[in-house]
Amino acid sequence: MWQNLGRMRVEILCTGNELLDGSVVDSNSAWLEAKLFEFGLEVAEKRVVPDDIDVIIEAMREISLRADFCVTSGGLGPTPDDLTAEALANAAGVPLVEDVHTAERLRAWMQSRGREYGPAQSRQALVPKGAEIIDNPVGSAPHIQMKIGKCTFALLPGVPREFFVLADAHVIPRIHERFSKDISEQYAFTQLRCINVWEADMAWAVRELPKSHPSVRIGTRTMAPENHLKLRASGPTRAEAQARLDAAVREAKDKLGTRVYAVGDTTFAMATLQKLRDEGATVAFAESVSGGMAASLLAEVPGASHALVASYVVYSEKAKMNLLDLDPDLLAREGPVSEAVTRELARLARERARTTYAAACTGWAGPTGGNARDPVGTFYAALATPSEVTVSRFEYPRADRERIRKGAAYACLDLLRTAKP
Amino acid sequence: MWQNLGRMRVEILCTGNELLDGSVVDSNSAWLEAKLFEFGLEVAEKRVVPDDIDVIIEAMREISLRADFCVTSGGLGPTPDDLTAEALANAAGVPLVEDVHTAERLRAWMQSRGREYGPAQSRQALVPKGAEIIDNPVGSAPHIQMKIGKCTFALLPGVPREFFVLADAHVIPRIHERFSKDISEQYAFTQLRCINVWEADMAWAVRELPKSHPSVRIGTRTMAPENHLKLRASGPTRAEAQARLDAAVREAKDKLGTRVYAVGDTTFAMATLQKLRDEGATVAFAESVSGGMAASLLAEVPGASHALVASYVVYSEKAKMNLLDLDPDLLAREGPVSEAVTRELARLARERARTTYAAACTGWAGPTGGNARDPVGTFYAALATPSEVTVSRFEYPRADRERIRKGAAYACLDLLRTAKP
Repeated sequence: MWQNLGRMRVEILCTGNELLDGSVVDSNSAWLEAKLFEFGLEVAEKRVVPDDIDVIIEAMREISLRADFCVTSGGLGPTPDDLTAEALANAAGVPLVEDVHTAERLRAWMQSRGREYGPAQSRQALVPKGAEIIDNPVGSAPHIQMKIGKCTFALLPGVPREFFVLADAHVIPRIHERFSKDISEQYAFTQLRCINVWEADMAWAVRELPKSHPSVRIGTRTMAPENHLKLRASGPTRAEAQARLDAAVREAKDKLGTRVYAVGDTTFAMATLQKLRDEGATVAFAESVSGGMAASLLAEVPGASHALVASYVVYSEKAKMNLLDLDPDLLAREGPVSEAVTRELARLARERARTTYAAACTGWAGPTGGNARDPVGTFYAALATPSEVTVSRFEYPRADRERIRKGAAYACLDLLRTAKP
Repeated sequence: MWQNLGRMRVEILCTGNELLDGSVVDSNSAWLEAKLFEFGLEVAEKRVVPDDIDVIIEAMREISLRADFCVTSGGLGPTPDDLTAEALANAAGVPLVEDVHTAERLRAWMQSRGREYGPAQSRQALVPKGAEIIDNPVGSAPHIQMKIGKCTFALLPGVPREFFVLADAHVIPRIHERFSKDISEQYAFTQLRCINVWEADMAWAVRELPKSHPSVRIGTRTMAPENHLKLRASGPTRAEAQARLDAAVREAKDKLGTRVYAVGDTTFAMATLQKLRDEGATVAFAESVSGGMAASLLAEVPGASHALVASYVVYSEKAKMNLLDLDPDLLAREGPVSEAVTRELARLARERARTTYAAACTGWAGPTGGNARDPVGTFYAALATPSEVTVSRFEYPRADRERIRKGAAYACLDLLRTAKP
């Protein structure tokens, strides 16, 4: 039987045939779960059911018997497949009624777009009698909350943007408030973002941490080639939880050293750019195996142009010679994937683009290519600074093409991140 | 109550705290669902439960009462949190026993890596008594299948690669076989992959299709900036279903025209490269707003080097002048995001890289930048061919930075895909 551990029980119910035929991967749930986990709550269960009114009603009844809060995703649109509000009314044993305010809002909204307020729209104004109705600032379906027994149902649209906006404003704060009453402890959360370390080795490095920090719980998350160490501290007050978290973070950073590129929400590209900004440095790339991915990673960050000048994507041998005047003899003697060529590409890119740094990479991404010295999965990454050029060699023997190319792009950024000015 | 519509009922049960605290988005399920959908089967329900033996046992018992087949994901690793095999034994009312063959396989596997065969590994050799045990060619946990009542449970590892390999070899064929016995019809499936069309407009273009092809069911899937039209035909034989599908595909292609870039599993980059290969053409890019993403999209395809020569990622104004000798007066007069500059970048890239074609893009990806003529969300894409240079202007007023940059990269590839040789 379900065990309620004296804690608030939250469940998620997703509706939609598209979530059961492989059309759509539900990412709303993971987003909500991560937000709730930050203050100490773990979702007890998630169910995904089709657009079938009887199935949705039955699921709501079952959930109402055991949960304190149920967030639903999907089924609030204007089509006949959108059944969540009707199912909630049925599960609660109340009729569907028109919400006058919502009907007015939808009518005005349609008129302002020169469109007719038809049966499809008026359907979205039908809500369970007695439910709390909250305006949706970014879409047409209203947000509905209603209790069945002790369980509050909060109905959210499946459209991610509407889900996020309404959950942030009206669902997460209410769950937090109710959760906080239920527990004696407060929580603080953060994550250490690591590079150049396997998940198992990262966990091993901090294995003693829970002994010296008994109020801190740790977890890991892999987003290859990154690994993140999640830390959540509890304490009698929020400030005490935060102080305990800070102490644990200091110890974890000591153990993991430069493998930690950031604490919190800073991405790897943001951390790399911040370091370059602090130095007032600029960068160019010469990319072969990564094919432009290194520059593109940096360009994803708003304002990247303070540091990112250019990338020479020299994918073919011809391009290596044409774009950067690489010595054809060197290329023929050493091969396109080699320490000497990668070194020279970095040096030439820096010289041509007139930047503080340049990073270069070459490699065999497979499935064909490679040789006895450098099989598929091998890549080289080089960094040219004002004073020297250094090269590293990497082997990812069992990785696929995407992983190898991403590894090379990350290696270029990591050389910049750790470069001594 | 659950309705079994005379059809085989398949459910998915995912286990793992990491699926309930936001650490991991489950993509195994969507992959499996899409594979089953191809031959006409829709998954009836999916549940996600934590690593709690009582909860898993209870879920298995409930599922065994209503489903014909249950695929589980996760909980087969060597840690104490991995509980799926034990839960299955408990739900079936049988003991856990050592599978001698698996124990030998794991011992040999560990020895070959110079590691000890310890309690963690020997745990993975424990299976429910009477279960069918199948070797896992890509990991340590064996694949387990066992019936409880009429329901077959198939236990798969949560690691995506192991999940995919084992499901393809041992789960999907068995479900298909059992499903085919149960139904009188056969199915054929494909998808039309589209670009430059909104999902709603794509659906509108083929709205009459079900009338002339009553045995064909259609669905849509958005993977911005692409939209895919899924078609599934039924018929008394597989050949007849395929013939009906082919007829529907022809009509849908007529309606959608060049917006269809491929039918089936060909990606946009693959379709673009295939066209270039057919012509024996080569390509270079001059990328500003896309920051290397256009070249990187092509480089993701094995063998891209037959066509992809180079990309000049000229992110800064300085780079536009340094790498491609863009006229500083033109840049000052027209601005870095302009028809004239984009046109000139394409022309210069083609000339420098000595390729058949060159594509260029400039744009304002936001959140800052832009001007009265070209606000954030505006980008230009140009194509230089042996005979001319053409430019298109795009506006994505409400898109975020990633979407705008991806739009520009796709626009470059689309110009190549549709270029007249």
